[in-house]
Amino acid sequence: MHKKGNLFVVSGPSGAGKGTIIREISKNDNDFKLSVSVTTRAPRNKEIEGVNYYFKTKEKFMDMIENDEFLEYAEVYDNFYGTPKKLVLEAVEKGETILLEIDIQGAIQVKKNYPEGIFIFILPPTMAELKNRIIERGSETDETLKKRMLSAFHEISYMEKYDYFIINDVLEDSIKSFKSIIKAEKCRVMANVKNLLKTYEEEL
Amino acid sequence: MHKKGNLFVVSGPSGAGKGTIIREISKNDNDFKLSVSVTTRAPRNKEIEGVNYYFKTKEKFMDMIENDEFLEYAEVYDNFYGTPKKLVLEAVEKGETILLEIDIQGAIQVKKNYPEGIFIFILPPTMAELKNRIIERGSETDETLKKRMLSAFHEISYMEKYDYFIINDVLEDSIKSFKSIIKAEKCRVMANVKNLLKTYEEEL
Repeated sequence: MHKKGNLFVVSGPSGAGKGTIIREISKNDNDFKLSVSVTTRAPRNKEIEGVNYYFKTKEKFMDMIENDEFLEYAEVYDNFYGTPKKLVLEAVEKGETILLEIDIQGAIQVKKNYPEGIFIFILPPTMAELKNRIIERGSETDETLKKRMLSAFHEISYMEKYDYFIINDVLEDSIKSFKSIIKAEKCRVMANVKNLLKTYEEEL
Repeated sequence: MHKKGNLFVVSGPSGAGKGTIIREISKNDNDFKLSVSVTTRAPRNKEIEGVNYYFKTKEKFMDMIENDEFLEYAEVYDNFYGTPKKLVLEAVEKGETILLEIDIQGAIQVKKNYPEGIFIFILPPTMAELKNRIIERGSETDETLKKRMLSAFHEISYMEKYDYFIINDVLEDSIKSFKSIIKAEKCRVMANVKNLLKTYEEEL
């Protein structure tokens, strides 16, 4: 039977380790694909069209916004970045598992445009550890340290918009949890019930 | 941080192999507990109160129905069987994972009384294989065979009331899927977000 795939959207405050988790997961398994963004910035050394990014002119990017072709987009330092809707949703329809690492504002946009996505929030083990990491980097005054901690907590408070959380203490455990979430979501009745019933009925 | 547990309710047509999956899962892992039913039937040889069943008089059982003390109950051949609400929900609150194998009618009752439960449907690999198994047992006329197949498909059509499905083809794969579902559900934001936010805020 044909099973639908899924889009997994992954966020979390910086220092939580979401990049590491996603790298480890996509390294050892061909079942997962990283979402490739569209950008208006110029290609850098060795970057390949369609692998690292889809490179577009600003004019083309504006057209794509106009035509509602993004799951989300944002402007960062005069360049635009966006997640192409059609490519991602076609891959999911084909049965692929797509991973998208994105900040909270981006994730909220994706959720609006594609509520069927699975939203995972990566947390640091403790605020104390996050604090230690920031202090270890040095150059923070008491006041900026306080501000950074409040900002991290503000980010964490968006967790309720997400489906799953992973407390990234031991990396291996986090990867196991992440893989379990992906495997479990493949067993979801809702996305597959029509196909399943049809299959069993045809065999009757 | 204290995490809530879960109640997993498992159903599926006979021959799908749900009993085997649950036995295998609860055998090698102390994290799972099988729900213990209340019954009015007499204890059989070696059955232990509180392990195999909670044995009650019919009068006491009727009182329990009256006082809404069951997640579900049913009468089978003049005896009553029921799942005690308080014991299960207290265990879940404490963080335990409770497994309840039950027929579809029972599962629908549980869902009404405890929609937070996680409902898993175990499927046979194909209807053709189910048919073969029934034929192999012999003594079926064409007509009763047809009736049994229709009844199995009728049961399968209730799948849409469930959260997850597992197609039980290779037992080991089914056990992996089941364990992934349990692990993933432990990462659910919804059941834990208040506790999580409180924990991170206290550490701020």
